Amino acid sequence: MRYAPSELRAFAAALLAAAGLDGDKPAIVAERLVAADGMGHTTHGLAQLGDYLEEIEAGRMAKTGEPAILSDRGAVAVWDARRLPGVWVTALAVTTAVERARIYGSASIAIRRSHHIACLAAFLPIATDAGMMVLLSSSDPSDAHVAPFGGTKAVFTPDPIAIGIPTSGDAILIDTSASITTAGLSARLRGEGGRFPGLWAQDAAGRPSDDPAVLIADPKGTLLPTGGADHGHKGYGLALMVEALTQGLSGYGRADGESEWGASVFVEVFDPEAFAGRAAFLRQTDFVAEACRANPPIDPARPVRLPGAKALSGLQRAETEGLTLHPGILSGLEPFANALGVAMPDVRT
Amino acid sequence: MRYAPSELRAFAAALLAAAGLDGDKPAIVAERLVAADGMGHTTHGLAQLGDYLEEIEAGRMAKTGEPAILSDRGAVAVWDARRLPGVWVTALAVTTAVERARIYGSASIAIRRSHHIACLAAFLPIATDAGMMVLLSSSDPSDAHVAPFGGTKAVFTPDPIAIGIPTSGDAILIDTSASITTAGLSARLRGEGGRFPGLWAQDAAGRPSDDPAVLIADPKGTLLPTGGADHGHKGYGLALMVEALTQGLSGYGRADGESEWGASVFVEVFDPEAFAGRAAFLRQTDFVAEACRANPPIDPARPVRLPGAKALSGLQRAETEGLTLHPGILSGLEPFANALGVAMPDVRT
Repeated sequence: MRYAPSELRAFAAALLAAAGLDGDKPAIVAERLVAADGMGHTTHGLAQLGDYLEEIEAGRMAKTGEPAILSDRGAVAVWDARRLPGVWVTALAVTTAVERARIYGSASIAIRRSHHIACLAAFLPIATDAGMMVLLSSSDPSDAHVAPFGGTKAVFTPDPIAIGIPTSGDAILIDTSASITTAGLSARLRGEGGRFPGLWAQDAAGRPSDDPAVLIADPKGTLLPTGGADHGHKGYGLALMVEALTQGLSGYGRADGESEWGASVFVEVFDPEAFAGRAAFLRQTDFVAEACRANPPIDPARPVRLPGAKALSGLQRAETEGLTLHPGILSGLEPFANALGVAMPDVRT
Repeated sequence: MRYAPSELRAFAAALLAAAGLDGDKPAIVAERLVAADGMGHTTHGLAQLGDYLEEIEAGRMAKTGEPAILSDRGAVAVWDARRLPGVWVTALAVTTAVERARIYGSASIAIRRSHHIACLAAFLPIATDAGMMVLLSSSDPSDAHVAPFGGTKAVFTPDPIAIGIPTSGDAILIDTSASITTAGLSARLRGEGGRFPGLWAQDAAGRPSDDPAVLIADPKGTLLPTGGADHGHKGYGLALMVEALTQGLSGYGRADGESEWGASVFVEVFDPEAFAGRAAFLRQTDFVAEACRANPPIDPARPVRLPGAKALSGLQRAETEGLTLHPGILSGLEPFANALGVAMPDVRT
């Protein structure tokens, strides 16, 4: 069952518009969710849309207006997103940071009270297509799955860090995080009765485990920070960095006892032209990219890839051959489509 | 054998001044190297001084003057360090970025052709003592020990990332990197006939190994990226980020075929006051810091620590009780002291 991405975008946008999002919000949210599916981040694409529609219905996602500007010094700003759709707010923040980086050389925007921002990698091309390097991070102050290294009680969300790096060819699109895996992937795996491919979690006593069920056991286990039981102090450090960038700089986070699903977000864009120049930047990133692509692989059948290469080819393939969604995503949206009077998308012929 | 840190600083500064460093360079380099030893980073403190003196002697470390300014837009700048002492250049860059962050909210300085910068964590207090958050990264374009994930040929240095985060109490001082361990620690371990505590390296065929000797075997193995064989794509992403920040933005790196020991450096400082305000920032970082410190530990004998806590108490203890250097460091400096006519430091009584 393949769908034209344009058809899926129109479907998602129609649902969001029917639910009450104003202006360009439906189109922008739809665009980045479908991009996430195209890039293979299938837990953070249209799989989120049903939850978003429920949040709108329940009044927990704001439908109209702009973020409030809490501070603005040109090169740095803080926005209060007032629980507007995080995907729209984040796209706006990256676009705004690109414009400002052209003036100041770099621009940072910290955002409080955003709703969920879905797939971080899907925003990176907004900056890299403009020739800029971008760093994007988020955390959810209402939630926690990851304990500090050596501890047993969850303090952090997986705290993703996405980085977009222009080269002369395809951009490098890095999607990493302070924990080995995410809550979304764990839930999906649990539902399928699967196991992690490694010791990516720990039970409540801190025993490393490959069983995603430890996360919902009583007492609850946690996801291990990047580096795992062996060197999880590395991921622990990254988590502290992300929480400071997203919640510290935005001035809103765990200290506020937030109980609703959402995000504190940090976006920074660097304009290579303001540093040593675009050509000098690309000369270095091209060189390193080629040293990776040409690297003798451990397994000859698995050449070394640059982060984002698979995602970008997935996006391209989706446009030319159509997109196959993860099982259950479209059927899960059917009740919303019926309730909101939106036709289901046509299968690509 | 304990030494007063002031005695060690005076000794190191006297050696560097006798070797020809001008102005405040001897004092600043000495200060940060001794701080590194106090913080427990004993491969990156006075252990480096002999090599620095040899580099000066050989004309490979510049002795006088300032970095050349290649671009400057206020909030971002690029310096050519002309192979000046990296410890001095980096301290100057953090100090300068702190001053500029007060104006612009954030300030980034990318530095090319610095000499070795030693221990990144030792620079963080310059910013955190001023109430600012700091991010510091470096790479050495002349060297490589870490292969891209899935590859076998070294492309990257360990590519450290250090982050300083103010709280109302001690700052959080994170010292992480894109690889599990460093070349320096591997060499020391190899010299002692030791093994890594985990599979932190791989041989030339890509087989994970705990033997630091694989790094000097023929053909050579490599250090594994953070995450190791299990999830080393995480560290691989971080390495690409660090190389782009340090070499891409400074416009100088591996593409230039550099063969001499040195560093490309990236410093960024954020002023919380320009974002949501200092109080709002500390409210969040204090909360998270306490959630970590109070976290139920896996092993009751090993309470959860914040990154930097041990380093800061080491620094304090060094001032009150004196500093014990790693074996061999002072005796290794004795020939330099004799040649330069500098008296060895007095043991603390």
